[in-house]
Amino acid sequence: MSGQGDKRTWRVGVAGLGTVGAGLLNFLSEQPDFAPAGGRAVVTGVSARSKSRQRPVDISNLPWFDDAAQLAASPDNDIFVELIGGSDGPAKVAVETALKAGKPVVTANKALIAEHGAELAALAEAQGVPLLFEAAVMGGTPAVKMLREAMVGDDVKSLAGILNGTCNYILTEMEASGRPFADVLADAQRLGYAEADPTMDVGGFDAAHKISILAALAFGCAPNYAAAEIEGIDQIDILDIRMAKDLGYRIKLVASADRSPDGVLVRVHPSLAPLNHPLAQAGGALNALFIEGTRIGRIFIQGPGAGSGPTAAAVAADIADVMTAATRPVFQGPAKSLAPFTPVDPRKSVSRAYMRFLVRDEPGVIAAVSETLAEAGVSIESFLQKPVEDAGGVPIVLTTHAVAESVLISAIDKIAGLPAVIDRPRLLRIARI
Amino acid sequence: MSGQGDKRTWRVGVAGLGTVGAGLLNFLSEQPDFAPAGGRAVVTGVSARSKSRQRPVDISNLPWFDDAAQLAASPDNDIFVELIGGSDGPAKVAVETALKAGKPVVTANKALIAEHGAELAALAEAQGVPLLFEAAVMGGTPAVKMLREAMVGDDVKSLAGILNGTCNYILTEMEASGRPFADVLADAQRLGYAEADPTMDVGGFDAAHKISILAALAFGCAPNYAAAEIEGIDQIDILDIRMAKDLGYRIKLVASADRSPDGVLVRVHPSLAPLNHPLAQAGGALNALFIEGTRIGRIFIQGPGAGSGPTAAAVAADIADVMTAATRPVFQGPAKSLAPFTPVDPRKSVSRAYMRFLVRDEPGVIAAVSETLAEAGVSIESFLQKPVEDAGGVPIVLTTHAVAESVLISAIDKIAGLPAVIDRPRLLRIARI
Repeated sequence: MSGQGDKRTWRVGVAGLGTVGAGLLNFLSEQPDFAPAGGRAVVTGVSARSKSRQRPVDISNLPWFDDAAQLAASPDNDIFVELIGGSDGPAKVAVETALKAGKPVVTANKALIAEHGAELAALAEAQGVPLLFEAAVMGGTPAVKMLREAMVGDDVKSLAGILNGTCNYILTEMEASGRPFADVLADAQRLGYAEADPTMDVGGFDAAHKISILAALAFGCAPNYAAAEIEGIDQIDILDIRMAKDLGYRIKLVASADRSPDGVLVRVHPSLAPLNHPLAQAGGALNALFIEGTRIGRIFIQGPGAGSGPTAAAVAADIADVMTAATRPVFQGPAKSLAPFTPVDPRKSVSRAYMRFLVRDEPGVIAAVSETLAEAGVSIESFLQKPVEDAGGVPIVLTTHAVAESVLISAIDKIAGLPAVIDRPRLLRIARI
Repeated sequence: MSGQGDKRTWRVGVAGLGTVGAGLLNFLSEQPDFAPAGGRAVVTGVSARSKSRQRPVDISNLPWFDDAAQLAASPDNDIFVELIGGSDGPAKVAVETALKAGKPVVTANKALIAEHGAELAALAEAQGVPLLFEAAVMGGTPAVKMLREAMVGDDVKSLAGILNGTCNYILTEMEASGRPFADVLADAQRLGYAEADPTMDVGGFDAAHKISILAALAFGCAPNYAAAEIEGIDQIDILDIRMAKDLGYRIKLVASADRSPDGVLVRVHPSLAPLNHPLAQAGGALNALFIEGTRIGRIFIQGPGAGSGPTAAAVAADIADVMTAATRPVFQGPAKSLAPFTPVDPRKSVSRAYMRFLVRDEPGVIAAVSETLAEAGVSIESFLQKPVEDAGGVPIVLTTHAVAESVLISAIDKIAGLPAVIDRPRLLRIARI
């Protein structure tokens, strides 16, 4: 490494030259003021799948590596930035290579950290180097730094957030336009808000990676993506969006993590949020997060979850942290103290719920439904029956008071068995926010 | 200092044992998990005005110092925490003493940092020690860390926030109860939301200290409290709250900082925020902040601005930053680079406004008012005349399109001269958020 006195030039290798990689290269070359601890960050090597592909950044003068692991191992860079993505494959190999070479790593790879974060943290700390991943969750909105550092003086009890901008965009547009999921998804793909294969986003898997990382930071446990309950938005009917609104709610894909004496519950579900709640108000492609700490109380943050500008700025902030040499553990506590968490049985979790059934227009239906619920131990908070054209039956929607999930499932089964009920009732949770 | 291998016990001296000091002492003694970088933080000396006063914490076993500067100078502590308050006097002397002794300082003192931040930063950096002040702004909500570190990869253009919980509580309660300012202030004092002498809060001075600090962090300039435009909430009439609501707005004490090629404008004013805007929704004693960055876009954060739990947790997070040895400058850039900012002439600033007049119930009043405004170059966006009982006249309220402040003031002067207008018209800005 080169330097002048205590000012130092840090050489940066960047693997992955998509939107974020190009944004980072442009940022570092255009930002003469970016001088953390008086040093400079200069890109000295790049790697991607295709050298010749058209890009919004000029890489012709930069040393090229076909193999990201070779870039990671090269002695010609001091910091390795991984922007390839994917929990396994070249990203994992390259990150491990960099850490084993004693090199600080900055990554935007949520799948990698959610699925292999504990082992990578152990490797990083054994080498005494930072492993930073602000850009992996909520893009330019600094939730990772907030949980890792600002909340170190508190015990966090729960997190609830909107962590996937694709799903937020789709649900917001479904409500605004009244059009069904498939139509709005197609538009989102055309506009670049959704991928050609949208499964990771609309299936809830991306949000689950992100909430697993945040839960680990919040609770001092190892990230445990495998224990996350995941339900995406691909079954959301425009009818539910309308009727939830009639009852005063908006449907959002809520990713949540709760810690109790029984353990930790991490889940991603389409859930109802009260219309005037900040999470319900965070529309379009925004991301948003509620953090509840024992001492601090409730902090809410919202901002851009993706995009070249915001995400590159988050990567740059992590590079600045490397350059200012903070010796923190990767998560909130040292890697060896990251306990595997005890997953709580979700069927014991208590929440309020929204149920929607389609019923035949016959006498006695409301009586049958409400008696069934009462016998099952479910207490009704709101109830609405409202004929809707082309619904295939008469929709009934209701919200319940708080009850255990196992009781809800059992009640739904009984109601599905009533003669007047046309199909399996739809169940959505009301977010605990 | 003592230590075992690379684990180290950091000895902490705490000056000021009010709500925050007591909360911090309790936190450090009750939190066995608080071990940043594997070290421990132990209080080894305290100082306050009165040794024998009743406190919610037991200090009988701790070395006592009558003089905070002596505590700061003592070789028996490694970190000095200043929780006394006040821009000058014992707090300033003690902080300077600690920094000159090469000791890291953590403070919650917004007045000190707003008025003397640049000189203290120079002193801290000359000694190579941190000066941290998360708890000085927005209590437990980590705005300082966010601006100093997470936004280092961006150019911040503007800030707009609600930074004083006393004023937010009072305005929220005035709207909810319909009671006048003086009554609600008295209640707030009884409940502990306002001081016996409430001037610093309701006069807007506390919010001005805080926004001066945030502006320095955001724009890379020296804090310049003297240049802040300050207007408090003590002239807010319940009539304005009601009529602003009729027009779709809520009145908040908004602290803002804007950077333009002309310089920096820092101001605190009661302003109108659209009812569905996150700042308008942050009620009660909450604090909230919008940050607009060139790359990141808009980030919004809200949370508790005060209180023993949140503020002590913020001080603890700063202590953790000291213990993890990050070598950052005090503000975003090194002290010697903190340019004094060029204050922008506020009369040139362009904004939308709310005006309220009381007029005699006579023919031709609306015509006179609207012609006067048109001639003055003010274009009307909304207009409402609505008789209200016991108002002393008929209220007219209107909102304007964007216009320079000097034009607004001149228009107000002309309208005040109209025969039908009963008293000097009230002007409130519409927040640019």
